[in-house]
Amino acid sequence: MDPLSRIEQALNAAVGQAEAPGCPPRLAAAMRASVFPRGARIRPRLCLAVAAACGEDAPGLTDAAAASIELLHCASLVHDDLPCFDDADTRRGRPTVHRVFGAPLAVLAGDALIVLAFQILADAAVVAPARLGRLVQVIGRSVGVPRGIVAGQAWECESGEIDLAEYQREKTGALFAAATVAGAAAAGHECEPWRAVGLRLGEAYQVADDIRDATGSAEALGKPVGQDAAHDRPNAVAQLGLDGAIDWLEDLARRAVAAVPPCPGQSALRGHILSETTRLLPVELSRHAA
Amino acid sequence: MDPLSRIEQALNAAVGQAEAPGCPPRLAAAMRASVFPRGARIRPRLCLAVAAACGEDAPGLTDAAAASIELLHCASLVHDDLPCFDDADTRRGRPTVHRVFGAPLAVLAGDALIVLAFQILADAAVVAPARLGRLVQVIGRSVGVPRGIVAGQAWECESGEIDLAEYQREKTGALFAAATVAGAAAAGHECEPWRAVGLRLGEAYQVADDIRDATGSAEALGKPVGQDAAHDRPNAVAQLGLDGAIDWLEDLARRAVAAVPPCPGQSALRGHILSETTRLLPVELSRHAA
Repeated sequence: MDPLSRIEQALNAAVGQAEAPGCPPRLAAAMRASVFPRGARIRPRLCLAVAAACGEDAPGLTDAAAASIELLHCASLVHDDLPCFDDADTRRGRPTVHRVFGAPLAVLAGDALIVLAFQILADAAVVAPARLGRLVQVIGRSVGVPRGIVAGQAWECESGEIDLAEYQREKTGALFAAATVAGAAAAGHECEPWRAVGLRLGEAYQVADDIRDATGSAEALGKPVGQDAAHDRPNAVAQLGLDGAIDWLEDLARRAVAAVPPCPGQSALRGHILSETTRLLPVELSRHAA
Repeated sequence: MDPLSRIEQALNAAVGQAEAPGCPPRLAAAMRASVFPRGARIRPRLCLAVAAACGEDAPGLTDAAAASIELLHCASLVHDDLPCFDDADTRRGRPTVHRVFGAPLAVLAGDALIVLAFQILADAAVVAPARLGRLVQVIGRSVGVPRGIVAGQAWECESGEIDLAEYQREKTGALFAAATVAGAAAAGHECEPWRAVGLRLGEAYQVADDIRDATGSAEALGKPVGQDAAHDRPNAVAQLGLDGAIDWLEDLARRAVAAVPPCPGQSALRGHILSETTRLLPVELSRHAA
């Protein structure tokens, strides 16, 4: 099965647990709306690519790790969109979960997705129980305290001089690092050397997001463009120009490639990373980059 | 070390992870305010009592299981108190987390506590990795979908004829069942037979809460009394009279005692359950019950 089908199947099975008898139907619907229709699934695809490069031997556990990371990503989007944070109306071109189901169910759907992310890991790890502890640690660290995505979001609530752009980058990097490290851990590979790969790719994703915000169309992006300029936020294109930002993106991709640890599928993974990074750009610019 | 000191020490170490360098200080403060000062810690004390009765051999893992359940309980209180749910001003006689830190940090503190609950399990399970999967499953089930406390809370967001009192009971029962089942699992004991003990004690706790609501003082309870009558909610005292409610509580305690599976500390645990149930009542009524 191709990677995207594996991911959608694992996510569908996970969300399906909310559709079992006894579960409030609107909670189940809010959870499904948080996870489907799909976004780019960039983090779980990275997780699967790393596991494959490490010679995966427990594909069900890889799928669970990838789905776990995507569930946590979706939970963070639903909570970030809440009226008390961004008060966003649309996400992926659709009304946000709290606009459709109300803020209470948006809070609870996020909570339930966080719990579900750990439940599916435990369920899948019966085939390789010795790997569960590391997976829970790696994925938990990327989400919780002191430096996971929840902590990154909380910097917006601090007073005083805070470099929010720095924390935004850290927040993006945290889940990308989880994707590479958990991919290796699910395959029973030594996993910490994979952190640098994820961090570089998280940075590259942030630069690509800056480029799309500065050059893209709202339709292609699924959210309003020009937000960095409108909110006076730092943006790689504003700082370096378009060519400079593309150069930086390519440099980050090369550094991610260079950081790939020795593994059976090292060379294929390197090719995958380069082509994925090009895909992050709008079509007309990716031709430019190629 | 006595059980309560073990619990406070484990919770303090857990929340201390939020006070590491790099964590937003107000998030850390909101998490600490969610967990301390302590409530009755009734669920973690039950977890420790069951593990002891099973002949616990991995006390660090028991402590983590007990703390995990309490962190999840605290997270659910912080989210339930939010303006979009109960909009509560006080909890345990103090201003609620969102009143002190604002709704955004209350959402994030709850999220971070949920993640932390699984992180501390994984950290502690290095001494007995084979027990981690069951612990994550048991505790996750009590919180998530389809029938954990988050799902229980979500019934308030459904339309149509819903027996909220029934779901309230289920919600209370879920974490009590987690406390008994996880206590046995942390000790490496066969754990599912312990579910019935937790469910009966959860019901007993609910009846005791009804009695306190109908007869207690707001000071002793740490929250307003007479809420069931004010909101036309079912209450055991209204349905059965005070004596009838106390009889029911005692009957539930006896049924919990009868459900205790064979284990090395069976007789001591039975005594513990009976004395704990008596402690649930206001002092003047516990004399009446004795």
